[in-house]
Amino acid sequence: MFPKIHQAPRSTLPLMKESPGVVDLLGLLAYAELSAYARMTEDATTLAPSLADRMALSELAVTEYAHFRLLRDRLAELGADPAEAMSPYVAALDAWHAQTRPADWLQALVKTYVGDGIAHDFYREGARHLDPSIADLVDEVLVDEGRSQFAVERVRAGIEADPKAAARLALWARRLVGEALSQAQQVAAARPELALLLVEAGGGQADISRLFAKLTEEHGKRMAAMGL
Amino acid sequence: MFPKIHQAPRSTLPLMKESPGVVDLLGLLAYAELSAYARMTEDATTLAPSLADRMALSELAVTEYAHFRLLRDRLAELGADPAEAMSPYVAALDAWHAQTRPADWLQALVKTYVGDGIAHDFYREGARHLDPSIADLVDEVLVDEGRSQFAVERVRAGIEADPKAAARLALWARRLVGEALSQAQQVAAARPELALLLVEAGGGQADISRLFAKLTEEHGKRMAAMGL
Repeated sequence: MFPKIHQAPRSTLPLMKESPGVVDLLGLLAYAELSAYARMTEDATTLAPSLADRMALSELAVTEYAHFRLLRDRLAELGADPAEAMSPYVAALDAWHAQTRPADWLQALVKTYVGDGIAHDFYREGARHLDPSIADLVDEVLVDEGRSQFAVERVRAGIEADPKAAARLALWARRLVGEALSQAQQVAAARPELALLLVEAGGGQADISRLFAKLTEEHGKRMAAMGL
Repeated sequence: MFPKIHQAPRSTLPLMKESPGVVDLLGLLAYAELSAYARMTEDATTLAPSLADRMALSELAVTEYAHFRLLRDRLAELGADPAEAMSPYVAALDAWHAQTRPADWLQALVKTYVGDGIAHDFYREGARHLDPSIADLVDEVLVDEGRSQFAVERVRAGIEADPKAAARLALWARRLVGEALSQAQQVAAARPELALLLVEAGGGQADISRLFAKLTEEHGKRMAAMGL
């Protein structure tokens, strides 16, 4: 089933042993991509107002799956079982999706853009302290390439057509962030090695404060981009 | 959103005008792949008994999406709007999926294998009478590459573990075929140009009888492969 697996350069393997959080981070990121692909596919199929919209969101969903493949293959290269590496995060990410099930097309688009954005900030931060080859992989997976521009444009057009929608969507976006932080806290408590990745470059509590400030700042930029 | 679109060789365009059923066939096939991707993703997410199984079925689902991309791009090359070309078939294919929603993992696997198989026989037959470049595309989209071997192996193992499941799954497979033929009849009645593709090589009623005999024969082989 996994035709794209290829051998990792041997030189990366010893490094991995010094960063036990790496498999944690890649496992979390892999399940985040696998579940995002599934939920975006469902949202595209059940909520898109037209076949053109459905195709556009499905295209984003399948891109998430392509990212999942990269992470799955890297986990296998590191000698980890991808399913095993992902399993500690299934409950938290499934809970996030269950608590943030979009009620309509605009909510689905906001979730795609905001959810992807928060996740990307968070994982990029985790990867900052890693072996460069892993950091590069995470960057490759997370690169946006203007994909989410589609979501931004549709949300702006939706608000233009129905200005009352803005307040409702702003509330929705706040709920997405709140639920994400709540799940992230539980994951960090359950997986201390992963949490360490976020603070090990020194700074400790100060580093976590900086992370949250950074997440908040980036989230604000995304809200502004959507006109919220 | 459609980065892979490239220009069709001009020489194919006049030929298309002689085969008005081509856009019909590609539109039907495109929506079949788009909806198969969505349903298999849902089945993988909600019914797979393990993350490994979920990954395996998701991989098949995304392969269906890759086929959808090829067909969408070919439709665009032919100057057709992909969404418009697909829209006449949405109701029939959605009805088929709604009437054949798997209740468990083994039913999902049988549906993947049997449903794909029937669809492939049917479309390949439609493509027989077409311009070779279209027939080649359909062959490329439908090539199995042993993907469905995964479904066959899991179903056989499931029956070995629970022999009583065989009768239930055989009934399920018959229902899949019955519902497919019922929807195919309605599509043929609503899209006479598409139906003509199946009979235009001469033969008329005899050709249709041959088609059904062929579908039945291939279905029998698939049932035997699964041990049903």
